[in-house]
Amino acid sequence: MKLAVVGGGSTYTPELIDGFARLREELPLSEIALVDPDAHRLSLVAGMARRMLARAGHPAAVTEHAEVGPGVEGAGAVLLQLRVGGQAARNVDETLPLECGCVGQETTGAGGLAKALRTVPVVLEIAEEVRRRAPGAWIVDFTNPVGIVTRALLDEGHRAIGLCNVAIGMQRRFAALLDVPWQSIGLGHVGLNHLTWERSVTVDGREVLPALLEEHAASIAAEVGLPEWIVRDLGVVPSYYLRYFYEHDNVVEEQRVKPSRAAEVAAMEQTLLDVYADPASDTKPELLAKRGGAYYSEAAVALIASLAGDRGDVQVVNARNGATLPFLPPEAVIEVPAVIGASGAAPLPVPAVEPLYRGLIANVSAYEELALDAARNGGERRVRDALLAHPLIGQSDLATGLAARLIAANRAHLPWAV
Amino acid sequence: MKLAVVGGGSTYTPELIDGFARLREELPLSEIALVDPDAHRLSLVAGMARRMLARAGHPAAVTEHAEVGPGVEGAGAVLLQLRVGGQAARNVDETLPLECGCVGQETTGAGGLAKALRTVPVVLEIAEEVRRRAPGAWIVDFTNPVGIVTRALLDEGHRAIGLCNVAIGMQRRFAALLDVPWQSIGLGHVGLNHLTWERSVTVDGREVLPALLEEHAASIAAEVGLPEWIVRDLGVVPSYYLRYFYEHDNVVEEQRVKPSRAAEVAAMEQTLLDVYADPASDTKPELLAKRGGAYYSEAAVALIASLAGDRGDVQVVNARNGATLPFLPPEAVIEVPAVIGASGAAPLPVPAVEPLYRGLIANVSAYEELALDAARNGGERRVRDALLAHPLIGQSDLATGLAARLIAANRAHLPWAV
Amino acid sequence: MKLAVVGGGSTYTPELIDGFARLREELPLSEIALVDPDAHRLSLVAGMARRMLARAGHPAAVTEHAEVGPGVEGAGAVLLQLRVGGQAARNVDETLPLECGCVGQETTGAGGLAKALRTVPVVLEIAEEVRRRAPGAWIVDFTNPVGIVTRALLDEGHRAIGLCNVAIGMQRRFAALLDVPWQSIGLGHVGLNHLTWERSVTVDGREVLPALLEEHAASIAAEVGLPEWIVRDLGVVPSYYLRYFYEHDNVVEEQRVKPSRAAEVAAMEQTLLDVYADPASDTKPELLAKRGGAYYSEAAVALIASLAGDRGDVQVVNARNGATLPFLPPEAVIEVPAVIGASGAAPLPVPAVEPLYRGLIANVSAYEELALDAARNGGERRVRDALLAHPLIGQSDLATGLAARLIAANRAHLPWAV
Amino acid sequence: MKLAVVGGGSTYTPELIDGFARLREELPLSEIALVDPDAHRLSLVAGMARRMLARAGHPAAVTEHAEVGPGVEGAGAVLLQLRVGGQAARNVDETLPLECGCVGQETTGAGGLAKALRTVPVVLEIAEEVRRRAPGAWIVDFTNPVGIVTRALLDEGHRAIGLCNVAIGMQRRFAALLDVPWQSIGLGHVGLNHLTWERSVTVDGREVLPALLEEHAASIAAEVGLPEWIVRDLGVVPSYYLRYFYEHDNVVEEQRVKPSRAAEVAAMEQTLLDVYADPASDTKPELLAKRGGAYYSEAAVALIASLAGDRGDVQVVNARNGATLPFLPPEAVIEVPAVIGASGAAPLPVPAVEPLYRGLIANVSAYEELALDAARNGGERRVRDALLAHPLIGQSDLATGLAARLIAANRAHLPWAV
Repeated sequence: MKLAVVGGGSTYTPELIDGFARLREELPLSEIALVDPDAHRLSLVAGMARRMLARAGHPAAVTEHAEVGPGVEGAGAVLLQLRVGGQAARNVDETLPLECGCVGQETTGAGGLAKALRTVPVVLEIAEEVRRRAPGAWIVDFTNPVGIVTRALLDEGHRAIGLCNVAIGMQRRFAALLDVPWQSIGLGHVGLNHLTWERSVTVDGREVLPALLEEHAASIAAEVGLPEWIVRDLGVVPSYYLRYFYEHDNVVEEQRVKPSRAAEVAAMEQTLLDVYADPASDTKPELLAKRGGAYYSEAAVALIASLAGDRGDVQVVNARNGATLPFLPPEAVIEVPAVIGASGAAPLPVPAVEPLYRGLIANVSAYEELALDAARNGGERRVRDALLAHPLIGQSDLATGLAARLIAANRAHLPWAV
Repeated sequence: MKLAVVGGGSTYTPELIDGFARLREELPLSEIALVDPDAHRLSLVAGMARRMLARAGHPAAVTEHAEVGPGVEGAGAVLLQLRVGGQAARNVDETLPLECGCVGQETTGAGGLAKALRTVPVVLEIAEEVRRRAPGAWIVDFTNPVGIVTRALLDEGHRAIGLCNVAIGMQRRFAALLDVPWQSIGLGHVGLNHLTWERSVTVDGREVLPALLEEHAASIAAEVGLPEWIVRDLGVVPSYYLRYFYEHDNVVEEQRVKPSRAAEVAAMEQTLLDVYADPASDTKPELLAKRGGAYYSEAAVALIASLAGDRGDVQVVNARNGATLPFLPPEAVIEVPAVIGASGAAPLPVPAVEPLYRGLIANVSAYEELALDAARNGGERRVRDALLAHPLIGQSDLATGLAARLIAANRAHLPWAV
Repeated sequence: MKLAVVGGGSTYTPELIDGFARLREELPLSEIALVDPDAHRLSLVAGMARRMLARAGHPAAVTEHAEVGPGVEGAGAVLLQLRVGGQAARNVDETLPLECGCVGQETTGAGGLAKALRTVPVVLEIAEEVRRRAPGAWIVDFTNPVGIVTRALLDEGHRAIGLCNVAIGMQRRFAALLDVPWQSIGLGHVGLNHLTWERSVTVDGREVLPALLEEHAASIAAEVGLPEWIVRDLGVVPSYYLRYFYEHDNVVEEQRVKPSRAAEVAAMEQTLLDVYADPASDTKPELLAKRGGAYYSEAAVALIASLAGDRGDVQVVNARNGATLPFLPPEAVIEVPAVIGASGAAPLPVPAVEPLYRGLIANVSAYEELALDAARNGGERRVRDALLAHPLIGQSDLATGLAARLIAANRAHLPWAV
Repeated sequence: MKLAVVGGGSTYTPELIDGFARLREELPLSEIALVDPDAHRLSLVAGMARRMLARAGHPAAVTEHAEVGPGVEGAGAVLLQLRVGGQAARNVDETLPLECGCVGQETTGAGGLAKALRTVPVVLEIAEEVRRRAPGAWIVDFTNPVGIVTRALLDEGHRAIGLCNVAIGMQRRFAALLDVPWQSIGLGHVGLNHLTWERSVTVDGREVLPALLEEHAASIAAEVGLPEWIVRDLGVVPSYYLRYFYEHDNVVEEQRVKPSRAAEVAAMEQTLLDVYADPASDTKPELLAKRGGAYYSEAAVALIASLAGDRGDVQVVNARNGATLPFLPPEAVIEVPAVIGASGAAPLPVPAVEPLYRGLIANVSAYEELALDAARNGGERRVRDALLAHPLIGQSDLATGLAARLIAANRAHLPWAV
C-alpha cells in the first residue's frame, strides 16, 4: 500500500517512520509519499526517513511532493499532520488569548478556534484532491483541532477518521503502572477530542480503575497536571487538556511567567533539522520524545492496518456520535472506543455519562459546531459567536476583543478576511 | 378556594394581595392563609392584607399561621415564597462569591447553589405536610432557585409547578413597546429558569421579533443589561440573568464598587414594614415596585386559575422536560410555554435550539442535577462537584474555596453540616 | 517595677510571662498588671500566669484590672497588645478585601487600614490614662499596625516606642543557620513596620549576608514565602510581609482556597483557654508557638530593660525618622536599629537606600500618613484617600468599594461612623 | 537660527512647521533641518513642510538629512521627536503587557520601560553627535518617556530640557473654560512627566481652581478619563495619565475589547502621508489634530525662544529636581514650572506635596532610576528590578514574565540583548 503524509516535512515525521519500520508486519507499505510545500525541509526529513528505513531493512520508497495531487495519487491512506502557519501561527495561538486573560493553547479555547479557522479550509481542499486522485483512500486526521477538522471532513462526505494520541498514551501509561502488557488494557474513554475522561480501566476485561487510583492517584494527577484531590474525588482520569478548564486561571498565571510552548518547539525543531541534515544519522533522535506526540506512530499504524485489513478491533478514535451520546446531536464528532473495520469506525455503546462531564461535553460540542461554521463560512460575527459559546470565554467583551485580535493576527490564513 | 402562602410574612405579600383583589373574577378565593414563623412580621403583613382586601371589597378571610400544617390544611393551592435565612443569608450569597472573584447573586452561580442548599430541604418538608393536609393541592413554587426546587418537588412525586416573573415581564414590556394588548403577545421563551432567551415574539401569532429588535434593540439591551450589539447579533432577547454570564467580569467589577442588593432590599423592607404597621394604609405602596417581582401576582393568579379551572391556556412555567429539549434528560426541569390544565403543565414543542444557547443550557442543567444532589444528600464533596460543574466557576481552586466558604457561612441552615 | 499589659487577657500573655520568668535578671518586676475588659478570659489567663511565675519562683504579683486607669497606675512601663474587635474583626480584615480582589491581611492593605481605624482611637484614650496615672512610663506598642499606632502616640506627645518581632526572629534564625550566638548577630534592618529588608547581616561586626545567601537562599526564601530567585537577585532578605506585595496575586489565589488565619487562630484560642483553665497547668503550652509572635517576650523584656536601665544597646524598634531616611518626612515612623536608653530610641545612621526599596517605603509611608488622618479624623473620604494611596490598592473603584465595605463592617468600632 | 529636528520624517512634523510659521516673530528660523533615516518618508514630509512655509511666506530653508551629524551641524537647538522601532514597536508596547494583565501603554508601565530601553541608547548617541557638531545647542527632548530620556541626557552632561504638551494643553483648556486669554493662566503643575497634578490654577495670579472645579468638574473629569467624584474629592486636576493608575483594571478591560492605539495611528499615518505626497497640499490637515500632540509646536517654540532669547518667563518643563521636591533625590528629573533663560530651566519653589501624590511620585521616580539603569547597562535582571519597582507591576511573577517578553520582543533594538 502507498501511504501519503500531508505535512510530511514536519520534524515529527521520523517518529512516524520509526513506527512504520518497527511495525512493518502489521502494516506493509510499499511507498511513503511525503507532501510538503517547504522543499528544503522536506528534503532533509525525507533523507532522514530513507536512512531510517534502510537501517531497518524496510523496502518502502520515500517520495517527495510539493503538491498534494501527485502525492496522494493512488494512495490507500492519507495521513494529515499539517500545521497551517507553522510555529509562528502557533505562537500567536498561545500568546494572544493571554491579552484578554484567557488561556493560550493551540487546541483549546481561542487559540484552538484560530487554528480551526486556519486549518479547515486547507484540509477540505486537500480532501477534495484525495477524492479525485485516491477515491477509496481513508483520510486519517491528526491535525488539530481533530474533532472539528474530522467533522468538517465527514460533513463533506469524505472517508475520514480523527486520531489523537491521548488515549494510547493513557493505555501505555496504565500498563506500565500496573506492570501488564498494554494489549490487555481497555479504556472507558469518553468525550470529545482533548476533552476526555477515562471512566474505566480494565485488564483483560476486569475493572481496575479504583485500585489504580487508590495506589497511583498522586502520580497520575501529576501527569495530567491536576490536584490529586480532584482525581481521587472524581474517581476517573481526566486528560491533560482538562487542566485548561479545571485549572484555567492557574495556567494563565503560569503562562504569564513562562515562554510559550511554540517558542520551545521552534528551538527544538532547529536542533532536529540539524540532526536530519547529517548524512550519518539514521535513528530517531531522543529529543523527538520531547517534541510531543508520543505513540502517535503506533496509533496511526494500528488504525490504518485495521481499516485496510478490516480487523474489527477496538481503538479510540474520533467519529460521528450517532446515538452513542444521547445528549449530543447525531452529527457531532466524539472521541470514544470504536470497532475499526473496512467500513470505518463504529463507536461502542457508552454507559450513561455523569452530569459533571456531560454538561461540559455538551457545551464544548456546541462550541465546535459554531467554530466549524465560522471556519467554513467566515465573518467576524461567526467568530464572535463561537467564542461566546466557549465555556472558557463566554463573555461579550472577551468574544469581541478576541475575535478582532484573532482575525487581525491570522488574516493571511483566512480566505474570507482579505 | 383556600390558598395558602408559605412565607406569607414577606414584605412582598401585599403585591400578591393586590393581584388577588384586582383579579378576583379570574380566581375567586375564600381564604388566604399566610404561613410564617415570624409572628410579628406576619401580623403586620396580614393586617395590611386585610385592609387592602377590605378596600377592594374582596370577601376572602386572611388567616395567620406559624405552622405549615394548619396553614395548608384543605388548601386548593399552596404558593411557596419563603426565603430561608432571610436577607442576611442573601447578603452572604451576594458577597461571599466575590471573595473568589465570582459573581455574587442569589440565584446564579455559587450564591444560587447556597440558596438551593438552604431551601430544598425546607421545601421538601413543607411539601410532605401539603401531601398530608391538602392531598390534591398544587404547589406553585416561586422560591428560588425555581428550577432546582421544582425538580426536587417533582422527584418526590409532588404536584408542583415552578413559576417565575421573567416571561410575564417580557410579555408586558414587549406589549408596551409595540403598543398592543399584552394578551396578544406570544413568546418563544426557552431555557432553564433564569437562563432563557426569547427567540420569538408574536402578536396574534405573527412574528414581530426582527422588527422589534430593528427598532428597539437599544432600549431592550439596556433593560436586560447587555451591550446592544449582542442583542442585535443574536437576534433574540436574552433574559437579564444572561448578564451574569455574558458580562460576568464586568458585573464582578460593578459589585466590587456597589453595596449588595440584599443591603438595599433590607433597607427597603424596613420602610415597607413601617407602612404596613400604619392602620390607615390600605393600598400597595409605590416602593414595592422597586422590591422586585413585578407581575408576580398576575402570573400566580393566572397559573392557579388555569390549574383549578382546567383552562388549557398557554403560560410559561417550569416543568419536566420530557422530550421537549432532546439534548436534556427527560427528568430535567425546563422553562418554556406550556398548556396549563387540571393535570398540570404540558410543554409545547420547541423548535431546534441553536448551539449558542443549547450548549449553555445543557451545561447549567447538568449543574442543576448536581446541585440538587448536594442539596438532598449533603457533603462538601457534592457541593464541590456542583461548583466544578457550573460554567461560571468550573475550576478546582474556586470549587474548593467556595465550597468551604458556602458551607461555613450557611452551616446553620444545612441539616447535614452540623 | 510595675509593668502593665493592656490586652492582658490575650491567650498570648503566657508567652510574655514565660519571658519575664526566664529573663528576670534582666528585667526585675514586682507587679504585672493585666488589663482586659473580658473578666472571664482575664481570670483564666491571670491564673495561668500566677502558676507559671510560681513554678519559676518569680516573686511578681499578677493583678487583674477591668479598667485601664487602675491598671496602669504607677507603672514604669505599659505594654499594648490589645485587639479591638477580637478575632471576629480580624476575620473581616482577612476576608473582606478579597471581595475586591485584594489581599486580606490584618496589617497590610485594606485590612491593615481597617485595623488602624479601629485601634488608633482606643490606643490614644489609653495613652491619655497613662499620662495621668503613670506620667513617666514608657508605652511599648505591640498592637498592629505598629507603625501607624506608634506615630499616633508620638504625635500626641506620648513616650512611646513601637515593637515588632520580625527583626528579632530574623536575628535568631540567622544565628541558627550560621551556628553562632544570637547576641553576635547585627542586622541592617530598614524600612517601615512590616515592610522591611535586611540589607546586612553581621557576625561580630563582620558582613556575612552574601555568604549566608550563597548557602541558604532556598531555605530563607521558603521561610519568607518568596521565590528563591528574588532573594538571590536582590541580595537582601525581605520580611515575610513583602510577600503581600511581591506575590500579591498569588497570595489572593491562596486565600481564595484556604480558610482565613483568623478562623485558625480562633480555634487555637479555644484550646489554649482550656489549658489555662486547668489548675494543674503551669508551663507554656507548645501550641502557643503556632499562635504567632515568637520571641515577642524577649523583645519586650530587652526593650523595657534598656529603657529602664539606660543600657544604650542597639535594638530594632519603631521610632521617629528624623533625618535617618532623607526621602521621608522627619515625623514619619520607621523601623530601624536604634540605640535604646533612658531618653528613648535614637536611630542609627542608615546607608543610602536603593531605589527598589526606597520607592515602596516612600509610597507606604505616605499611605500611613493618610491612614492616621483617617483614623483620627474619620470620614469616608479620608478612608478612600488612604486606600487610593496604598500601592496594593491605588484604584478609584477599589478605593470606593473597599471604603464602603470597611466602614460598614467596622461601624461598631468607629467612633465617627455612627 | 538653525533648528534641527531629529525624527523629522514623522507625520507629526507639519504640526511643528505650522507652529514655526504662525510664531515666526517669536522664533525666527533660517533653516529647519529634518533628520530621518527613512528617506522616502522624509522627502514627503519635507516637501509638505516647504509648501506650508512658502504659503506662509516664511523664509526658512528646509533641509533633509539621513545622518544626524550633518543635520545638527551648527544648529542652535535640536528637537528630538524620534520613535525607535516605529509604530510596530509601539504596538508591542501597547499589547504585550496585556498578556500579563497589565496596562499596555507606550509611556507608562511595562510599555514605557520597553520604550526607554529602546530609546535611551539611541538618544545618547545623537546627543554625542550634537556635542561634537553643535556644541552650545540646547537639546529639547519630546521623545518619550521624557522624564527618563531627559535624565539620561543630563547625567551625561548634555544641555537638555524635556518637553511635554500636557501642561500647555491644560492651560489652553482652562482658558477656554474660563473664557480668558491663555497667557493669563498659571498652573500649579507638579510631579513627573506623565504623572502630574494641577494643584493650582490662577488667572493673573488669582486662584480659581476651586471655582473651576465647582462648575466644570464633570467635563474636566471626562477629559482626563477619571470619575467625577475623584476630581471633586481631590480638588485638583490629575493628568490623563493618572488614569492608568487610578483606573488601571478598567483600562485593561477596555484595551481587551478595543484595537491598540498604535494600530489606529498607523492607519492615520498612511492617510497623512498620502496628503503630504500631494503637491497641491500646503496646509496642516485636520486629521493631524487626532494624531496626538496638540500645542506641541507652541510649547516647542516658546521653550526654544526663551532659551535662545534668555526671556526668563515661566514654562512647565522637565528638569533636575535639585531641592524642589525634598522627598526626591536632587538628580531626579521632575516636571514643574520653571524660569527659562539662557542658562536653562530653574524650577520655581513648590508648596509641600500632599501624601496622596507624594507617595506615588516617589515610587515612580525610584522606578525611573532603575529603568534608566536598565536602559544604560542592560541585562534581564535590571529590567526585572525596574518592573518590580513599578507600582503598576510590583510582583515577582509579573516582573519575570514581562522582562522575558519585553526583551524577546525588542531584541532588535537592544544593543545588549544580541
